[in-house]
Amino acid sequence: MARRAGSDGAKTAEAIRAAGLRLIFEHGYEGMSLRDLAEMVGVQPGSLYNHIATKQALLFELLSGHMRTLTAALDEALAGVEGPLARLDAFVDFHLRYHLTRKMEVFVNNSELRSLEPRNRAVITGLRRDYERRLADILAEGAADGVFTVPDVKVATYAILAQLTGVVGWYAPDGRLSEDEVVALHYQLVLRGIRESAQTIRP
Amino acid sequence: MARRAGSDGAKTAEAIRAAGLRLIFEHGYEGMSLRDLAEMVGVQPGSLYNHIATKQALLFELLSGHMRTLTAALDEALAGVEGPLARLDAFVDFHLRYHLTRKMEVFVNNSELRSLEPRNRAVITGLRRDYERRLADILAEGAADGVFTVPDVKVATYAILAQLTGVVGWYAPDGRLSEDEVVALHYQLVLRGIRESAQTIRP
Repeated sequence: MARRAGSDGAKTAEAIRAAGLRLIFEHGYEGMSLRDLAEMVGVQPGSLYNHIATKQALLFELLSGHMRTLTAALDEALAGVEGPLARLDAFVDFHLRYHLTRKMEVFVNNSELRSLEPRNRAVITGLRRDYERRLADILAEGAADGVFTVPDVKVATYAILAQLTGVVGWYAPDGRLSEDEVVALHYQLVLRGIRESAQTIRP
Repeated sequence: MARRAGSDGAKTAEAIRAAGLRLIFEHGYEGMSLRDLAEMVGVQPGSLYNHIATKQALLFELLSGHMRTLTAALDEALAGVEGPLARLDAFVDFHLRYHLTRKMEVFVNNSELRSLEPRNRAVITGLRRDYERRLADILAEGAADGVFTVPDVKVATYAILAQLTGVVGWYAPDGRLSEDEVVALHYQLVLRGIRESAQTIRP
């Protein structure tokens, strides 16, 4: 019985996170009420507190969970991939495909940093830096090898991330372009942006 | 006296827009209360309605006002500039500098499309398309001239806009880089991204 209750508890906690993400996506953190959250999950408002300590804790769990899962998945995608060109290719491929199916996570992560308490915000900022550093390292390695021309690694890192993540805002799975086409088009844009000449240096 | 009242009325309306922008930036549209807005402006809640019809009308006015002013300013920046390379340069320069001083407008325009009623959202979407079309036209002209290589004008347009607007999220006027340096670094990234070879084709 205890085991079954544990399993139901885990399911309820997961349902709360999913509903919380959707409600914050649709209404904003301040616009989301815990009453609506309880209703969407199908529990009494009071029993939410068996699963989340506060609304702030829920937001922090959503944002930190997203960042930790993202970075772990990136590390898996980059594992064993050698050389800056191949690693950049793997990064672009991973970052695009991972985010294309996570529109709500991307939006909430970008729009609700404002709603984090300072200590929580510092943690999320640190997790973002960890993720960004992996791309910055690829660019710096390529620049050191003479494969890339990157006058400012930090600016190029932010520029590439903004360009790739921006796709989430307009991409429609049933639209004109397949995911593979979107990935190929962006890899080309990113790669050209940091190479002295696309004609003289080839992967 | 009537004239003076009119002038005060215009000042109050402007103060309401400025306070509304800040409150939506900080709390989200749903999280902003008209009571807080009245308090920030220093008027009675009831007298807000002498200036704005509804909270929705205020949001629509903020977003549409931003888009119309932006596109008019772009047209001014591009006026008389000939040829796709010079026009792209002017576009990048304008878009970056204009947005760097409008962090709140950029954030609210990107995060609160969700809060617009369908008819209002259609208007804003149309205004965004108008603005995007100007960049798309530059890219298409350059591709037709053989100056740019753009396999997909729409994707390149969105990619460039996301890359440039993303700067607003991290740029600090008192930071490491001057505005001129940020503009130059991005012009280089953008230009390389759409040119077959930076070595064989020069402006």
